[in-house]
Amino acid sequence: MHGFLIDLDGVVYDGDRVIPGAADAIAFLNQHHLPHLFVTNTSSVPARVVWQKLRFLGIEVPLRSILTPMIAARQWIRANGREPVAAFVPRPTLADFEGLNLLPPDVEVGARAIVIGDLGDQWDYRKLNRAFRLLDNAGEQGCLIALGMTRFCKAEDGRLRLDVAPFVKALEHSSYIEPTVMGKPAADFFQQAADSLSMPMSELIMIGDDIYSDIHGAQRCGMRGLLVKTGKFREQDINSDVRPDAILRSIADLPQWIRQQPWSEGLHEKPFVSKVLDAAF
Amino acid sequence: MHGFLIDLDGVVYDGDRVIPGAADAIAFLNQHHLPHLFVTNTSSVPARVVWQKLRFLGIEVPLRSILTPMIAARQWIRANGREPVAAFVPRPTLADFEGLNLLPPDVEVGARAIVIGDLGDQWDYRKLNRAFRLLDNAGEQGCLIALGMTRFCKAEDGRLRLDVAPFVKALEHSSYIEPTVMGKPAADFFQQAADSLSMPMSELIMIGDDIYSDIHGAQRCGMRGLLVKTGKFREQDINSDVRPDAILRSIADLPQWIRQQPWSEGLHEKPFVSKVLDAAF
Repeated sequence: MHGFLIDLDGVVYDGDRVIPGAADAIAFLNQHHLPHLFVTNTSSVPARVVWQKLRFLGIEVPLRSILTPMIAARQWIRANGREPVAAFVPRPTLADFEGLNLLPPDVEVGARAIVIGDLGDQWDYRKLNRAFRLLDNAGEQGCLIALGMTRFCKAEDGRLRLDVAPFVKALEHSSYIEPTVMGKPAADFFQQAADSLSMPMSELIMIGDDIYSDIHGAQRCGMRGLLVKTGKFREQDINSDVRPDAILRSIADLPQWIRQQPWSEGLHEKPFVSKVLDAAF
Repeated sequence: MHGFLIDLDGVVYDGDRVIPGAADAIAFLNQHHLPHLFVTNTSSVPARVVWQKLRFLGIEVPLRSILTPMIAARQWIRANGREPVAAFVPRPTLADFEGLNLLPPDVEVGARAIVIGDLGDQWDYRKLNRAFRLLDNAGEQGCLIALGMTRFCKAEDGRLRLDVAPFVKALEHSSYIEPTVMGKPAADFFQQAADSLSMPMSELIMIGDDIYSDIHGAQRCGMRGLLVKTGKFREQDINSDVRPDAILRSIADLPQWIRQQPWSEGLHEKPFVSKVLDAAF
């Protein structure tokens, strides 16, 4: 049994353009009952928006097959019994925390999970200090959850701006609490993905366009890493220290690659529904 | 030749109370021309305020014999030719940067030294992001100077609040630039103190009440550490991993301790002025 973790941006779509053949490749996984999960580091919009984007691009998948850092955090918090939650995230993404016991804003005691996202210019001393006090107050009972560890990103004016990691580092240093990171290439995030599929990491294959975050990150967790030459891929990636388990021109070549694998023999060449249709004509 | 670095709070005074005998001990150092410098981690007020406090407590010293993180930063910046300077410090302490080429607020390029102090609730995303952009823009030419690395302190309401270190950590992580720390126990700060006295560390003796910050910090730099049993000293400090080179009941015992040292033979038992006075009566 093999399962697939599939990066979205650069693998299934590139900005607002679908990667040619992506829909067919995903259909192939469905037809052959190969478990798969879409794993993305997006934390600026809720999973439902990612799901709608895929639909808009002609790719129909169940909402539950999309794993974002927020969704992974919610699952981790539930599995580890870490409510109430104090969430330092942009308001729209709170949709992904629906159902969790959320601490009201400004309360500085009582959280057992303190979640840090990219608040951008909404960060101020009072908010960061509140996160610190919540961590300090929670002691052994508390945990610091980082929605990724991106150091900086491009602001709308094209200049660099601070992302989530510096604020997590500030809190880690002041509270002496190590963060649990949700987002590639963190092991906790990949573990959350494996748990979602109820499969061991050793049976999972990560498909991504980032030689470090996707491929190296996956391999360090005992998964295999399959590099696609779309998205942010550059030819020099092939000469890096990281050796992908396979390299595909794009996700369109995934069905062909799977058919070449020794373990693919047990897969039905044609799905049941197609056979019935074939017989009908 | 021996020189002394003397911690202030807990050694010369305790809050608003002078340590009995401190004035005489300092007079002894003056009388015997033993070089000394007062080293404090205070960065919330300018050196002149520390100097006035000493005068108020009956201890007259030259202003230039007080080394605070701000003063050390100014000297370091001058010695290393790192102007212009962007200073993220409380406005009153800017007095200690008088004469330095300071970048106007809001300018996000052109600094060669980015100085981070405890801005408290004046920190916001725009300020921290500005510091990051200045560091990113300066590249190899830039340096990050931290006025101490205190993680948290007590707020006026008695609760803990974030101090300077978490903000330095945020900037270090995002800019990949290691901070130069001005404040005990950082080696850069002790070096600045030694430079101020124009003496090698091997000839310096640090007098402090903090077994880690003062004594261990000094010993790691090749100085000797002399622990006083005043201020924050606790009996269990004696059983810590750190072995002070000597332990005094208080700074009042310093003259007696110096007289017992083999190197004190060359010191005049009585200063010139006293001899004249003795002869006059």
